Amino acid sequence: MAFVFDFDHKHRKAPRSMKDLLGGKGANLAEMMTVLKLPVPYGFTVTTDACRHYMRSGWPASLDREISAHIVTLEAKMGRKLGDAVDPLLVSVRSGAKFSMPGMMDTVLNLGLNDASVVALARATNDERFAYDSYRRFIAMYGRIVLGVDAQRFEHPLEQRKAERNARTDADLPASVLGELCTHYKLIIKQETGKDFPQIPAKQLRGAIEAVFRSWNGARAIAYRTRERISHDLGTAVNVQAMVFGNRNDQSGTGVGFTRNPATGENVAYGDFLTNAQGEDVVAGIRNTESLDALERRFPDVYTELLGIFARLEHHYKDMCDTEFTIENGTLWMLQTRIGKRTGAAALRMAVEMTESTGSGKRRWSISRKEAITRVTAEHLDSVLHPQFARVIPPLVMGLGASPGAAVGAVYFTADSAADAAKRGERVILVRHETSPEDVHGMMAASGIVTSRGGLVSHAAVVARGWGTPAVVGAESLKIDGKRFTVGDTVVREGETISIDGTTGSVMIGALELVPATPTPEFHTILKWADEIRKGKLGVRTNADTATDAELGRTLGAEGIGLCRTEHMFLTPERLPVVRRMILADTPEREAAALEELREAQKEDFVGILRAMSGLPVTVRLLDPPLHEFLPHVHELEMKQARGGLDAQEADMLTAARAWSEVNPMLGTRGVRLGVMKPGLYAMQVRALMQAAEQVASEGFEPIVEVVIPLTVSDDELSLARGWVEDVLSEFGDLPRNTPSGKRAKRARVTVGTMIETPRAALRAEDLAAHSDFFSFGTNDLTQMTLGFSRDDVESRTMPRYLQLGLLRGNPFESIDQDGVGELVSLAVKRGRKAKGKLKIGVCGEHGGDPESIAFFYRTGLDYVSCSPYRVPIARLAAAHTIIGGGKNDTK
Amino acid sequence: MAFVFDFDHKHRKAPRSMKDLLGGKGANLAEMMTVLKLPVPYGFTVTTDACRHYMRSGWPASLDREISAHIVTLEAKMGRKLGDAVDPLLVSVRSGAKFSMPGMMDTVLNLGLNDASVVALARATNDERFAYDSYRRFIAMYGRIVLGVDAQRFEHPLEQRKAERNARTDADLPASVLGELCTHYKLIIKQETGKDFPQIPAKQLRGAIEAVFRSWNGARAIAYRTRERISHDLGTAVNVQAMVFGNRNDQSGTGVGFTRNPATGENVAYGDFLTNAQGEDVVAGIRNTESLDALERRFPDVYTELLGIFARLEHHYKDMCDTEFTIENGTLWMLQTRIGKRTGAAALRMAVEMTESTGSGKRRWSISRKEAITRVTAEHLDSVLHPQFARVIPPLVMGLGASPGAAVGAVYFTADSAADAAKRGERVILVRHETSPEDVHGMMAASGIVTSRGGLVSHAAVVARGWGTPAVVGAESLKIDGKRFTVGDTVVREGETISIDGTTGSVMIGALELVPATPTPEFHTILKWADEIRKGKLGVRTNADTATDAELGRTLGAEGIGLCRTEHMFLTPERLPVVRRMILADTPEREAAALEELREAQKEDFVGILRAMSGLPVTVRLLDPPLHEFLPHVHELEMKQARGGLDAQEADMLTAARAWSEVNPMLGTRGVRLGVMKPGLYAMQVRALMQAAEQVASEGFEPIVEVVIPLTVSDDELSLARGWVEDVLSEFGDLPRNTPSGKRAKRARVTVGTMIETPRAALRAEDLAAHSDFFSFGTNDLTQMTLGFSRDDVESRTMPRYLQLGLLRGNPFESIDQDGVGELVSLAVKRGRKAKGKLKIGVCGEHGGDPESIAFFYRTGLDYVSCSPYRVPIARLAAAHTIIGGGKNDTK
Repeated sequence: MAFVFDFDHKHRKAPRSMKDLLGGKGANLAEMMTVLKLPVPYGFTVTTDACRHYMRSGWPASLDREISAHIVTLEAKMGRKLGDAVDPLLVSVRSGAKFSMPGMMDTVLNLGLNDASVVALARATNDERFAYDSYRRFIAMYGRIVLGVDAQRFEHPLEQRKAERNARTDADLPASVLGELCTHYKLIIKQETGKDFPQIPAKQLRGAIEAVFRSWNGARAIAYRTRERISHDLGTAVNVQAMVFGNRNDQSGTGVGFTRNPATGENVAYGDFLTNAQGEDVVAGIRNTESLDALERRFPDVYTELLGIFARLEHHYKDMCDTEFTIENGTLWMLQTRIGKRTGAAALRMAVEMTESTGSGKRRWSISRKEAITRVTAEHLDSVLHPQFARVIPPLVMGLGASPGAAVGAVYFTADSAADAAKRGERVILVRHETSPEDVHGMMAASGIVTSRGGLVSHAAVVARGWGTPAVVGAESLKIDGKRFTVGDTVVREGETISIDGTTGSVMIGALELVPATPTPEFHTILKWADEIRKGKLGVRTNADTATDAELGRTLGAEGIGLCRTEHMFLTPERLPVVRRMILADTPEREAAALEELREAQKEDFVGILRAMSGLPVTVRLLDPPLHEFLPHVHELEMKQARGGLDAQEADMLTAARAWSEVNPMLGTRGVRLGVMKPGLYAMQVRALMQAAEQVASEGFEPIVEVVIPLTVSDDELSLARGWVEDVLSEFGDLPRNTPSGKRAKRARVTVGTMIETPRAALRAEDLAAHSDFFSFGTNDLTQMTLGFSRDDVESRTMPRYLQLGLLRGNPFESIDQDGVGELVSLAVKRGRKAKGKLKIGVCGEHGGDPESIAFFYRTGLDYVSCSPYRVPIARLAAAHTIIGGGKNDTK
Repeated sequence: MAFVFDFDHKHRKAPRSMKDLLGGKGANLAEMMTVLKLPVPYGFTVTTDACRHYMRSGWPASLDREISAHIVTLEAKMGRKLGDAVDPLLVSVRSGAKFSMPGMMDTVLNLGLNDASVVALARATNDERFAYDSYRRFIAMYGRIVLGVDAQRFEHPLEQRKAERNARTDADLPASVLGELCTHYKLIIKQETGKDFPQIPAKQLRGAIEAVFRSWNGARAIAYRTRERISHDLGTAVNVQAMVFGNRNDQSGTGVGFTRNPATGENVAYGDFLTNAQGEDVVAGIRNTESLDALERRFPDVYTELLGIFARLEHHYKDMCDTEFTIENGTLWMLQTRIGKRTGAAALRMAVEMTESTGSGKRRWSISRKEAITRVTAEHLDSVLHPQFARVIPPLVMGLGASPGAAVGAVYFTADSAADAAKRGERVILVRHETSPEDVHGMMAASGIVTSRGGLVSHAAVVARGWGTPAVVGAESLKIDGKRFTVGDTVVREGETISIDGTTGSVMIGALELVPATPTPEFHTILKWADEIRKGKLGVRTNADTATDAELGRTLGAEGIGLCRTEHMFLTPERLPVVRRMILADTPEREAAALEELREAQKEDFVGILRAMSGLPVTVRLLDPPLHEFLPHVHELEMKQARGGLDAQEADMLTAARAWSEVNPMLGTRGVRLGVMKPGLYAMQVRALMQAAEQVASEGFEPIVEVVIPLTVSDDELSLARGWVEDVLSEFGDLPRNTPSGKRAKRARVTVGTMIETPRAALRAEDLAAHSDFFSFGTNDLTQMTLGFSRDDVESRTMPRYLQLGLLRGNPFESIDQDGVGELVSLAVKRGRKAKGKLKIGVCGEHGGDPESIAFFYRTGLDYVSCSPYRVPIARLAAAHTIIGGGKNDTK
């Protein structure tokens, strides 16, 4: 088995398709050299196979011999030799994994220099300063990366010499000083490692390659891969390439170039360029770079050549490419190319524009609409739907990104103070341990929300997502202490400004610049194309509890409401007291009176929602959360009792709160169990819903109502609950159904279904289907119960460690656990459809907006997914991606 | 389809095997009449088919005609006619379901009387008083049962007349008054129902039969069936039988007789007898009954005949029979027989004695040992293992029977006052809202424990079961208020005496008489026989956390420990502070120091347990509960803080308690997740265990150690945790294994397995098996997660209503939910064994001691069950029952 391939090796298939073996950088270097015949310095790739072998069982026995043979070939092609005392060859050693991991892994430049070849280099280039500068850079880089010497040990002597000579930059140091610095550096290495700096190039090379292999398992690289869900098994390739020097002289330079503008998507070449510099200098931002216009002025021929190369790259890759290039003594060399990263707006614009004919002459090309759709990712859409920060700075603290988008504002710690500050015109970030229904007015006033506790389904997270307010939750290192919070030594006081990113979960000090949400025309074009592929195959609905959300969801393309929770309607400040009266009622009459009051209120909510969704189905979930969520906390009341005492109403409240308090509310008296304990509740909700439907129908709207019963475990339970619903429905007629022409036609039956949220419901789906017109999966709860993971507890505390240790493939609340929870879903679909062939089945948990999960749901045969309004476009796109990718639908 | 059969109908098979159709009473009446040729009054049975038809779709169209035909036959056999004005036939109408439901359903006697036949009866019997007494009883009974008139309406006029005439008993009222009472009763019926009392016997009969059908769905009957887990679909049969009168004169009488003593099991006929009385009078206990000796004195011939019948019944049924008989004018009639109920001690004695030859001459008979085993039930064993109350009185309040047995003691409300009272020599019942580790000294001092909150896995329940202390938990109507508790209007103060029954969950006021636990020699005989059947097919282990429990379990026949929880060792007053130091530790050194202290302590516990179980396997579960269980409650600390302030240590405790507090502890950071968060913990536990094993091995004992990792969800997680265990194991050698002769032979490997407690673990059993030497099902947790039912919350609040409404087949925590949780168990067994053919699999949840669940586990292919020590004999017996019953083992 060969572990090493020259860039110009004749592979059996296009090198660009061999990233698994050659890594991204190696594959594209080979592609440019052998297929596109672009000017690429010779070199070779040590494959990922070699790296995996190294990680598994050490340095492959045959590898030294292979490398040595390829070095001989390289030396022959270049006509120079590594370490040669007359005209030495220098090489770079760069990592190149399958997926780009920018800045995560190591590079060694100028390898091949030693005490003899540095002299030869000085002579050959007639530039002693250049030679010793290259040597001292190499020694330091090698010392740090390969030998593990602290970088500071090399930095100090350099700074010292600059200070002694009043040198402003490194370039001000003469060759003699640099030569002396090389001697000093070698001494440092001897002191630190007990060994001499290696003078034999083959030994240098092996050390460098091994260091790159090792860097695959560096802490930063592991953290990056975990975050990006890249497998830790892949390993990296290593590219050894003849050096070209952009820092040789003023006829040299280096730059990065994009074939189009990666920020806007405009079809104009874009890049950064530095004269007389090495690639590192561009990236490090030490010197101010110039645009490609400067390249055109200084090197007009090179500029023309580069634009020609860009055109060939685009024609070849049929996408925007990102390149690195170097000019050595007026000659252009391509050092890297890859498909370029781009902003959301740019991705949308490019995708649409590339479907039109582009390029010129023989190089005319375009992509299909399907291809255009696949060029746009969920993140791209998300970024144009929410405000973003213009630039990223290191966060003060990280929590969970609970509701996407960026926000800036002054910190307030209570709902009242936040609301007051907002009234004064301030932009506010509400910071709380956790939020509760009592905080809703403060949350409503806030531009962003931060909590130190709770997971992605905590009150704060759910409410913020519903409103599209950016939120970071579970930032556990953030300690709130009265009117300030601390993170480590940093103290932030009330009124001070912070910036939060609800997409990434980061909290920064100060006000970062915001880029507002910008859904471009291309956004709508791409989604229209995606819908053409998707429609009739997988529906997309929205979760919405208010008319506003329903309208937003519809604007964003939702084909109905998959989940209308009714509990949020209970939590508004006016209604909470009524809900409490209902819970506290000590006679059936008082309970009935409170229910009657709630019915009026609920009816109004439903009217708004049904108007907004006229002609589209609305799935209303009967009350689900445990009753204690509507009562004050037991211990708050007890504290008050201990301090001074409670009034009569508060004392009643305490009794009720105790009676309804639960040890494990997630597994407690909620869902249909509430109905069993208080049957009047569900009847009231259905009556309110039907009265609303009749009203909006009389106004000319077309309500389509589906009622869903939560948390069932048995068919007897479902049949009983369905009975309560049917009893009320029988008081009403079918709902009018308008034909497209506006004429009244047949009347629509209200359908009744069940949530599949408990493992038992999934297992008994065949029984449940007999009493259901449809199923709706609640995969949040199903995940919690299948894994025994409470989101509130596990997600912020245990999950990060689980993911870090690779104990789970990913956060099962973000993307459905296909091997566990997924088996229950697919089993429930099969069993449900066994009982009822055409049973309609959807999903309304958070997973309904996650692309990977959507692909799974489509394969599993679901009819629709439902997600929060802002995820609707993403779901539409993801569904199209799956269908284009050939995601097979298992059951239809 | 025939709905009615005469008692002497020639069925194709023995009537006694047709209880499904004829009900128990009807089947045995037919058996006595047609097979045994015993003196039984003629009659017929309306089948359960008719009742089911009635419940489903009303009175069967053909039924009136059928009944009428059978009445004609009956009248012919008896030579008398219903409602006849000369010599009328009277019949009784009695319910008779497949399973006896004593007192739950309705009976109508003397049917056929009307204004004409009563006169005829008086004439025919020459006893006017008897005739009118029978008539007034019939009208009242019919009015109450068939027509739904309040019994008080009939009771008042009777009492009034007795008062007017200074009559002591009903018998003191003359015929004239009784006749007038009949007229009054008919008037009451007219007033209450608007209709006349029916005079036509056929109409009376249809009404009575329909009433018996209806009584199947009476509230008491439903409650009884739910409690006894009898299907609500069965329906009841109805027996219509010619009346014989034990109250005709002094040559008449009635009694109940047992073929042996049902209290002791002694092989001597036993019964109660009343001269000149009806059956109801014996049962109602209005008059003092006499023993069978009195029968022998008064009716020597009848007595001899009855003993002969007893011998024939025993020979025929090969079991102790319970009979009802009536003597009318010196003639003996058998009105009922069935296999008699018996106490545990009697059941054991009879079962063993019946295997020896019994009876005489042609009537010699015996039963096999297998048969003897099946004659003994779990309840029989339980009753001889725990103290019981001598008699049952209505409870003041019911909770959940959390730990079986009866106890009497003075009420105390705090652990301290309970412990003090016990020191003074009082017997104490500790009554608490709920218990926590801080209450352990009070619990230890108590003879019984009552809590008003919590389910069958609450702290109180688990600890009490472990110690065999009777306990009632979740008695929600019991309100504790300082030094007293109230139930409705009843107040019980500190120091007052109550009696509690931890088997039934009842709490009574005052001191009931206790019958101590009495494991008889027959107890051991039956279990020895059961083991002969069971061994090699299904193992029985005990759950034990202490040496005392381990010894007790071994004495009761356990073949090892299936679950040794390690958390209870952490909860003793000396160790809790160390555990807290470990949790609070702010440096790795402090954590290590605390762990080291715990290691020493745990080692000592393990030494005791391993000594007690020498030669038998001991499965030790690594720490499982969430860490906050070892800390004080957040809100208790907050209350203290609000009141006065906390010292430094308490303040730290509050911080830690907050940090580790959980919203849903059941789904929180527990089980192997603790290991992931604090890896030193599990290493410490394994080290303590292995040091203990080495020590007891050096003492000559033979430790067999199995380590089980709790709450896993993925193979990666299990593989990591197994790594921690193996790392420590590698510090030790294999354990010595003694041959039976006492010589050291091969050494035993410590095995490592996983709990299957989450639905995901069950689904991924194939992956988990690759890293497991054995599986142990934790079906408590598996049930909680599969149904989404937290025991702490649902069991006492929602479950009773669920069972009452028939929404679940039974409490899934008592007997495994075979359709839901059971599918996961069986799937995990199949998948686990797919990966490892011989994978050892056991269960250690509460279900391990439940007979129905044990049968399921055996069929599903488990190797052993494990349960609390006192359930071990029951599990041994239940396993034998299953095997004898042909319970198929699916997978072996």
